[in-house]
Amino acid sequence: MSTNEIIEKLINGEIKLYEVEKYASSANEATDVRRMFIEKVRNVSLENIAKYTLDMEEAGKRNIENSIGAIQIPIGIAGPLNINGDYLNEEEIYVPLATSEGALVASVNRGCSAIYAAGGVNAHLIDDKMTRAPVIKLNSSTDSVKLKSWFENNFSKLKEIAESTTSHGKLIKIDPILIVGNYVYPRFTFSTGDSMGMNMVTIATEKILENIPQELNAHVIALSGNVCVDKKPSAINFIEGRGKSVVADIIIPENIVKSKLKTTSEAIEEVNIVKNLLGSAVSGSMGFNAHYANMIGAIFLATGQDDAHIVEGSLGITTAENRNGDLYFSVNMPDLPIATVGGGTSIETAKESLNILGVAGSGKVNKFAEIIISVVLAGELSLLGALAAGHLARAHKELGRGK
Amino acid sequence: MSTNEIIEKLINGEIKLYEVEKYASSANEATDVRRMFIEKVRNVSLENIAKYTLDMEEAGKRNIENSIGAIQIPIGIAGPLNINGDYLNEEEIYVPLATSEGALVASVNRGCSAIYAAGGVNAHLIDDKMTRAPVIKLNSSTDSVKLKSWFENNFSKLKEIAESTTSHGKLIKIDPILIVGNYVYPRFTFSTGDSMGMNMVTIATEKILENIPQELNAHVIALSGNVCVDKKPSAINFIEGRGKSVVADIIIPENIVKSKLKTTSEAIEEVNIVKNLLGSAVSGSMGFNAHYANMIGAIFLATGQDDAHIVEGSLGITTAENRNGDLYFSVNMPDLPIATVGGGTSIETAKESLNILGVAGSGKVNKFAEIIISVVLAGELSLLGALAAGHLARAHKELGRGK
Amino acid sequence: MSTNEIIEKLINGEIKLYEVEKYASSANEATDVRRMFIEKVRNVSLENIAKYTLDMEEAGKRNIENSIGAIQIPIGIAGPLNINGDYLNEEEIYVPLATSEGALVASVNRGCSAIYAAGGVNAHLIDDKMTRAPVIKLNSSTDSVKLKSWFENNFSKLKEIAESTTSHGKLIKIDPILIVGNYVYPRFTFSTGDSMGMNMVTIATEKILENIPQELNAHVIALSGNVCVDKKPSAINFIEGRGKSVVADIIIPENIVKSKLKTTSEAIEEVNIVKNLLGSAVSGSMGFNAHYANMIGAIFLATGQDDAHIVEGSLGITTAENRNGDLYFSVNMPDLPIATVGGGTSIETAKESLNILGVAGSGKVNKFAEIIISVVLAGELSLLGALAAGHLARAHKELGRGK
Amino acid sequence: MSTNEIIEKLINGEIKLYEVEKYASSANEATDVRRMFIEKVRNVSLENIAKYTLDMEEAGKRNIENSIGAIQIPIGIAGPLNINGDYLNEEEIYVPLATSEGALVASVNRGCSAIYAAGGVNAHLIDDKMTRAPVIKLNSSTDSVKLKSWFENNFSKLKEIAESTTSHGKLIKIDPILIVGNYVYPRFTFSTGDSMGMNMVTIATEKILENIPQELNAHVIALSGNVCVDKKPSAINFIEGRGKSVVADIIIPENIVKSKLKTTSEAIEEVNIVKNLLGSAVSGSMGFNAHYANMIGAIFLATGQDDAHIVEGSLGITTAENRNGDLYFSVNMPDLPIATVGGGTSIETAKESLNILGVAGSGKVNKFAEIIISVVLAGELSLLGALAAGHLARAHKELGRGK
Repeated sequence: MSTNEIIEKLINGEIKLYEVEKYASSANEATDVRRMFIEKVRNVSLENIAKYTLDMEEAGKRNIENSIGAIQIPIGIAGPLNINGDYLNEEEIYVPLATSEGALVASVNRGCSAIYAAGGVNAHLIDDKMTRAPVIKLNSSTDSVKLKSWFENNFSKLKEIAESTTSHGKLIKIDPILIVGNYVYPRFTFSTGDSMGMNMVTIATEKILENIPQELNAHVIALSGNVCVDKKPSAINFIEGRGKSVVADIIIPENIVKSKLKTTSEAIEEVNIVKNLLGSAVSGSMGFNAHYANMIGAIFLATGQDDAHIVEGSLGITTAENRNGDLYFSVNMPDLPIATVGGGTSIETAKESLNILGVAGSGKVNKFAEIIISVVLAGELSLLGALAAGHLARAHKELGRGK
Repeated sequence: MSTNEIIEKLINGEIKLYEVEKYASSANEATDVRRMFIEKVRNVSLENIAKYTLDMEEAGKRNIENSIGAIQIPIGIAGPLNINGDYLNEEEIYVPLATSEGALVASVNRGCSAIYAAGGVNAHLIDDKMTRAPVIKLNSSTDSVKLKSWFENNFSKLKEIAESTTSHGKLIKIDPILIVGNYVYPRFTFSTGDSMGMNMVTIATEKILENIPQELNAHVIALSGNVCVDKKPSAINFIEGRGKSVVADIIIPENIVKSKLKTTSEAIEEVNIVKNLLGSAVSGSMGFNAHYANMIGAIFLATGQDDAHIVEGSLGITTAENRNGDLYFSVNMPDLPIATVGGGTSIETAKESLNILGVAGSGKVNKFAEIIISVVLAGELSLLGALAAGHLARAHKELGRGK
Repeated sequence: MSTNEIIEKLINGEIKLYEVEKYASSANEATDVRRMFIEKVRNVSLENIAKYTLDMEEAGKRNIENSIGAIQIPIGIAGPLNINGDYLNEEEIYVPLATSEGALVASVNRGCSAIYAAGGVNAHLIDDKMTRAPVIKLNSSTDSVKLKSWFENNFSKLKEIAESTTSHGKLIKIDPILIVGNYVYPRFTFSTGDSMGMNMVTIATEKILENIPQELNAHVIALSGNVCVDKKPSAINFIEGRGKSVVADIIIPENIVKSKLKTTSEAIEEVNIVKNLLGSAVSGSMGFNAHYANMIGAIFLATGQDDAHIVEGSLGITTAENRNGDLYFSVNMPDLPIATVGGGTSIETAKESLNILGVAGSGKVNKFAEIIISVVLAGELSLLGALAAGHLARAHKELGRGK
Repeated sequence: MSTNEIIEKLINGEIKLYEVEKYASSANEATDVRRMFIEKVRNVSLENIAKYTLDMEEAGKRNIENSIGAIQIPIGIAGPLNINGDYLNEEEIYVPLATSEGALVASVNRGCSAIYAAGGVNAHLIDDKMTRAPVIKLNSSTDSVKLKSWFENNFSKLKEIAESTTSHGKLIKIDPILIVGNYVYPRFTFSTGDSMGMNMVTIATEKILENIPQELNAHVIALSGNVCVDKKPSAINFIEGRGKSVVADIIIPENIVKSKLKTTSEAIEEVNIVKNLLGSAVSGSMGFNAHYANMIGAIFLATGQDDAHIVEGSLGITTAENRNGDLYFSVNMPDLPIATVGGGTSIETAKESLNILGVAGSGKVNKFAEIIISVVLAGELSLLGALAAGHLARAHKELGRGK
């Protein structure tokens, strides 16, 4: 069928958007057809969305349905950023940041500059896991208690079952197993290698659930019972961690605080206490930081991470301490789900960004985690420094959205 | 200076990344130079990042620093989605969704299909405001109480001062004014028209603060005291609202629940109670929903919104009620900061996406809010339906990341 | 009927515990009968519960059903505590504290001693209100929006209606009016004079609800919809306040910190940041303090307050700042529901405790609020001082439960 | 010294309140002296506070300092309440409730009556532990990671050390071990037998901390770092549990719901969803229940528990489900710190109340936990039933404070 014929049929309602692939000769043609259809019915021009270089055939298999093209988001570079970590050894990194928020790259860059002068960030991966917590219905709390015991008493067997479904996933623990009346929420916790792992653990979890003894009359209400907790801000993730749990810190000598950040350690310490701790406490905020989400967002977009996970990445606590004029500064992120393989990481521009960082492919995700927390430190340090120096509003007058 | 010369100087450390614009002949050349520099020092190829069509000259003014090109994210179309709102009248919308998470567009599309058959979503904008809450230090709680009174007693005057700094912003209220010992956190609440407004309100707030009487010995510690609360999940935003506060609902007849969602109203009601309410409660989650962040993320990327605001958009509550076989279903989002002008909305592909929705430019942001909440309803409905039907893991086996 | 006959009938199941009053000659006899019945069927001696002096006739009308006597809790005295407030003028107070937790009175007393030497606490009542938020069901979110508007547009009329039910209550505002799909939660906010006021506002609220126009098809699901929020820890109360919202602070000179608290301002500041702020943040605690609940509990028991309100009183934030060696210290309580008339305040020992404080009866509740926050400051200061001095465990080895 | 002489010296400031024991001949005389002093300086009569029967000599050793007598709170009886538990076998219990809140005992009694007719509550102890989490300062996050590893790698040794300080406490785990920059918060989790155990675990924790290797340069900032979390409402306790974690449920046949509660299962289910789940969600409440604190408070006062722990007892989730007309109803309490020995349980009236329940002394605390959760179920059921029946305000008009 010709392109125009397919478009005609879309307009007439004879075929649906997702059926176009059946009639088109290629993923690219299907993409063109749908885009032209939209241009027609909405009377708009989509010439920029049309200009993509990514392989739509591949994207159509794993990343997108009903494609019409691609969006573009500008990408800038901050750095060099030097990091000492368990998976990096005094490496100097250039950081790709995709964003349309003016001033963000400049701000991170300023943080990198202060860090560089101070000798680098120390970064540590503390924990690493992916979780899935289904919700199971029993007849009574008595049976809930029995099911909890069953999970506890059959861990080795369930581990074997779970791991039969995956080559990389390992069941670490089932903990906590929460009971609410006749409902049980077991939190299956896996290590997942270099992929973010959410689907891997979902499949393994489903397999485990098939083995619950019939006599318990258990019924799986949902494979995710919101105790996982995926893409919502939650106390359980804040406390227990999810994805990578990372921490980074640095000591910035007094003269560098002054020359690079135009302020004092005392002022930054005070801003941190009054804004990030007291202010967050009094507003019921779960993020005891200034703007982790900005840095997480820009790295996630650049490197093909799932942007809905920015929600989880926004959790964390910043500390700042005046040590006789020098500044001790730390950032702490318990809940950072990331990947270097699978999902959006195979998008061409994402792979290029991962290559800039040297973390594309297998065996690199821990290094990637330590880089991300270091970039977060750079951006957080820069903003707190700017607030301390009273520069926020003026900086925004010159750069960015407010114009 | 030739391109190669600038690159050489970058390598030698004679000039810095942000200084390239001084030596390059255009924004595009500066972008090329930096990208080639990165290719060289990191030994990578960035050919896809190089292929952008957006106007880098313009982007450099408001969206990005140290640009090296653009990333691409595939964009798909869901719909038609029909909406009845205060700002839409039974309109049929095609929804552009930028994502690399397989199955998301298909899932939203399925939701749209059920909605279409049921006659459309009802959407309402409940509230609309942008907030900025600085933190001010006094000598004592006695002075904190005085400053609070001063804000309350001088509202008209402060409103006038604030509004002198902006053509679109209006100061609605200063509420709450929180006191923590010798610190005061007044929450300045503005309407901001079609822009997201955060910088607008920051500037207006700064102007207000300049007028605090000297005798109070007030000292502004930070223009943002984390009571705003920007880009962190927070109870105050959940309760008071921030950005747009929107609600949407629908009644889906029993036969459509069955034919389109392959499940029953009773099952969806139970999944919602057990997962979104009980599960969220027991895990200390702030999102009482399944995955608002997915839909918010895909629309935000498509339309040039600030992706760090996905954090705020993840808050909200879903309800589902079996009404004699029919399904009453609602989604509620108190905290949705969006814009149709300014910021990333001027990126070319973003503007095209806004045009698809018919909401580019001034006077359209309320309509945009009602569209977004309707898309969220479509996606939420689809996932709860899938969970109810026990299809989640199987769907992921076929489509998406897990492969 | 004789005492023994009634007991016999209780044992035989011919009459029920609450029916005893019908057959007994007095409240005291009914109390004796039930107690003797329990002694018999449980084979226990209740000789101390039998020895009460309170007027059981009166208590039976407003405080207790199925009475069997009274419990005793030891009461101690701390002080003098000197307070400067809006309702106290450099008054010296002796504080009655009822508790069975060893070391608590001693600890508060130590705090009072440091305060006394430093010249007294400054206390301020910031806000004063009681709230009741019913939940109302509509057919759709469209009707929810209409009902919200109706409340907003008829405030004067509703205020009049509400105030017709009470001589002391005043309707201040209906705010926020939260919408979740087809449910509306309007938060009715009253001033209630010297009584705690919860029943007063419940009755007034019920009257308002009777006036919702029939055409909205509104149905009151529950007179309390948990947005009030009564006797549960909640973000809305933390932010908006409930009951009395109070703050107190003090500057303690360096030498007094040293002589009375055996530590330094620097150490107390650090303990406060690391424990009350960072520790509370990382554990998802709603109380950013060390132990407000201890002091609130002991005053509440002494003065006949509702002990379930200790839950709300546990919310609040402590700050501590080293000011060149001197200590600035503040406590902040947004949610303190108290009374000087009504409820348990008429119990004889409670009235005596209120008399010790000079706050029994009408017109005294604001003064009472300022006293309570000052006592909380004393106890909080003392514990943070002890922690700072590393004395906690040792103090407990000598005094208190652990023995 | 004569009584009058000591009073004189108190008035002159020659001796302090806590020094009276030195000059008085007995604890009772010291109590009298202080009370008479207060009567004199405050010009009040404290005749009821004077009339106590508890052994002030003993109370002075473990429960109170600066005693002036005792308060009285009326105590009523609800029941019989029949319970099936792991530690009770279809036992019929009479429940002592100390309160001055009118209608509470009657309400619990009504719940007991419905439960009795339905055959009894099922109660289960799920978990049992007491926690203490100090905060330890290191030089850097690098050292924080090392200390965390040290705790993990030396568990057996630390367990031995901890248990050398106590005859009943057992160290179960050190989990989680939270890191925030250069601070570490290890949560030491113990079983503590029949005592509440907080001091026991504090002492054991202190002993462990003495063994941290010097080369880590660790400094204990506070023995409690607010990750315990004691007497504050917290997510970590909600999720992980503290004290006893208990659950109870029941199925109430349709005819009993109708005859005893004057409503339907459907109505109770709806009230629970709309109030306890949705209402709590939208107000940021940590208690997803109606009024656990009321029942916890009344039992705690009767039995000599620490009233500040009512705060923790207020956490929990209620569920209600209409099962073809019958009502499935459950209550869930993760955080219930209680004791049957030590602390206030030795107060005479407390011991009598514990005897009524058959849980005084050693080996009884698990049974006590199952009783408490059952009483909470009775009261929660009664109030939800009343709300469902629309009776709340009317009930309060007749009984209780509002009059």
